[in-house]
Amino acid sequence: MQQNKIKVAQFGLGPIGIESIKLAADKEWIEVVGGIDIDPAKAGKTLSDITGVGKLAAARMYKSFEELAEKGKVDVVLHTAGSKADVSIQQIMPMAQRGVSVVSSCEELLVPKFRAPKLAEELDAICRKSGARVLGTGVNPGFVMDVLPICMTGVSRTVEHIYVERVVNASTRRMPLQKKIGSGLEPEEMRRLFAEGKAGHAGFLESLALIGHAMGWQFTETYELFEPVIAPYDLTTKFFNVKKGQCCGIHQQVVGNVGSVQRVHMDLKMYLDARDPHDGATITGDPPLEIRVNGGVAGDHATVASLVNAIPRILKAQPGVLLMTDIGVPAWK
Amino acid sequence: MQQNKIKVAQFGLGPIGIESIKLAADKEWIEVVGGIDIDPAKAGKTLSDITGVGKLAAARMYKSFEELAEKGKVDVVLHTAGSKADVSIQQIMPMAQRGVSVVSSCEELLVPKFRAPKLAEELDAICRKSGARVLGTGVNPGFVMDVLPICMTGVSRTVEHIYVERVVNASTRRMPLQKKIGSGLEPEEMRRLFAEGKAGHAGFLESLALIGHAMGWQFTETYELFEPVIAPYDLTTKFFNVKKGQCCGIHQQVVGNVGSVQRVHMDLKMYLDARDPHDGATITGDPPLEIRVNGGVAGDHATVASLVNAIPRILKAQPGVLLMTDIGVPAWK
Repeated sequence: MQQNKIKVAQFGLGPIGIESIKLAADKEWIEVVGGIDIDPAKAGKTLSDITGVGKLAAARMYKSFEELAEKGKVDVVLHTAGSKADVSIQQIMPMAQRGVSVVSSCEELLVPKFRAPKLAEELDAICRKSGARVLGTGVNPGFVMDVLPICMTGVSRTVEHIYVERVVNASTRRMPLQKKIGSGLEPEEMRRLFAEGKAGHAGFLESLALIGHAMGWQFTETYELFEPVIAPYDLTTKFFNVKKGQCCGIHQQVVGNVGSVQRVHMDLKMYLDARDPHDGATITGDPPLEIRVNGGVAGDHATVASLVNAIPRILKAQPGVLLMTDIGVPAWK
Repeated sequence: MQQNKIKVAQFGLGPIGIESIKLAADKEWIEVVGGIDIDPAKAGKTLSDITGVGKLAAARMYKSFEELAEKGKVDVVLHTAGSKADVSIQQIMPMAQRGVSVVSSCEELLVPKFRAPKLAEELDAICRKSGARVLGTGVNPGFVMDVLPICMTGVSRTVEHIYVERVVNASTRRMPLQKKIGSGLEPEEMRRLFAEGKAGHAGFLESLALIGHAMGWQFTETYELFEPVIAPYDLTTKFFNVKKGQCCGIHQQVVGNVGSVQRVHMDLKMYLDARDPHDGATITGDPPLEIRVNGGVAGDHATVASLVNAIPRILKAQPGVLLMTDIGVPAWK
């Protein structure tokens, strides 16, 4: 049976990378063959040292993909090393050149051609030649605010407008998320960080682009709005103390218009003490559709699941740079 | 552009068939090339005569698929001519032999091998040779109680159990549905009709089989339960008068066990005056997931949409007898 397993390596061993390869190690159909991280402190270690999973003692850490690839076969790399399409594509190129497929958590790779059209085209050509598949996915972007509403329209006779919303109660989430949403910062500071591209939810315009692609809407205008959520009272979490009037989260929206017609509006709130966390979509059309995920889908925890679950589906798809709508229906594997 | 359109014919011109080809006629990417129905009263007519859609005046009615196929090219047949897998496969065989793909509303074709393993295998072999694709789909079975919960598990680390429910308020639905659920029959009569396979929701065990297939659960036991819903007071609809104590709908359930562990429970209620109609699923696992479609997805009306929307997706898939989980994410086209 061993030789039928899918050989998987992990690129990037931050918190998400560690969770990702730990989940992969649990799957009977996966053989974990190694890890790659540029951090010199990790060199020479094993994935067992880094993850605490005993059975990964034979899976070594490598400084580069090339070093790992020279040691033996790899089928799929799980890539969790940043949010930027251009940087990620540069990292993925050598993998694709060797015919190794990649599932990435890079938010901008949900629709690679949106930010990096030339690199995406180049990568696609490499994949088609080598047989590799490259997919960007996750929970958001990658599922709750894009794939799920798209999937609902499979029963639509007509679709006029799609509204998607997500409310995350950040108080129940890990420290990095509470930090990312600016807990305890002054609102002006948070606005400045967003304007500089250093804060806010990444990949939101990519979710919009994926919906537009699936619906066949050629947006003539898209835009993104950002506001800090202001703490209405003093707030305390396990990790932060936030004073009334400070930032306790983010409210981010994107809109897609075709001519004078608004087609998509997406609304994301992630803040401390948020009431009634949920994911939802309202599809105006025939029939009207209103879907709601009570409690919402927890991001980080489920993101690694969406990466690992996508592996069998990309391997069944045609080689190339893939979108979530190019591969089979999501499913637990 | 005309030559790039997908050439579609309609097999079966009952109410669903008429709605189906009318919707297809609305699509810019479809060219409707004809209709097939064994009813001699329809012979020699055009689809315009039958549907009232003026632009279908050139699309003739034929008595058989062969007769239509000899007149010109067909890419896809929309098949809406019954619920039984064996009968439907016999009708589809000649289409597949000519390399013509089929999207069918036949409930048992959601998982053809469940009721007709040998015929399904034979059809699959024909498809692989000829390049045809055959898919059974719809709203239920085909989406709300199977594909939608499966899709949710794309973000699951683990799945322990899937509960799916659907409540349809039949008072708001068409006459055939109100009749199908036994409105006004004596409860005993309805039980007898179900036992004889003449009443009840078709394709429920197929939905269960699709979920089992997607989750990798080899059910050791599956069963179906049926009870009429008894009118708690006198009920009047546009089409029926139902006395207190008579049947006003159906309550149908299926269960799938693996050994001593229950993995799936599905609960369907379709009755007059049902409160809070909705579709929902509760997925026990990590993370727990609870999804709800408020108001539910209207069956007949959306079923024809699911057939037409599936056309581009089957043509991108590998030839063969396909499951909904073998093709791309559902989407409006």
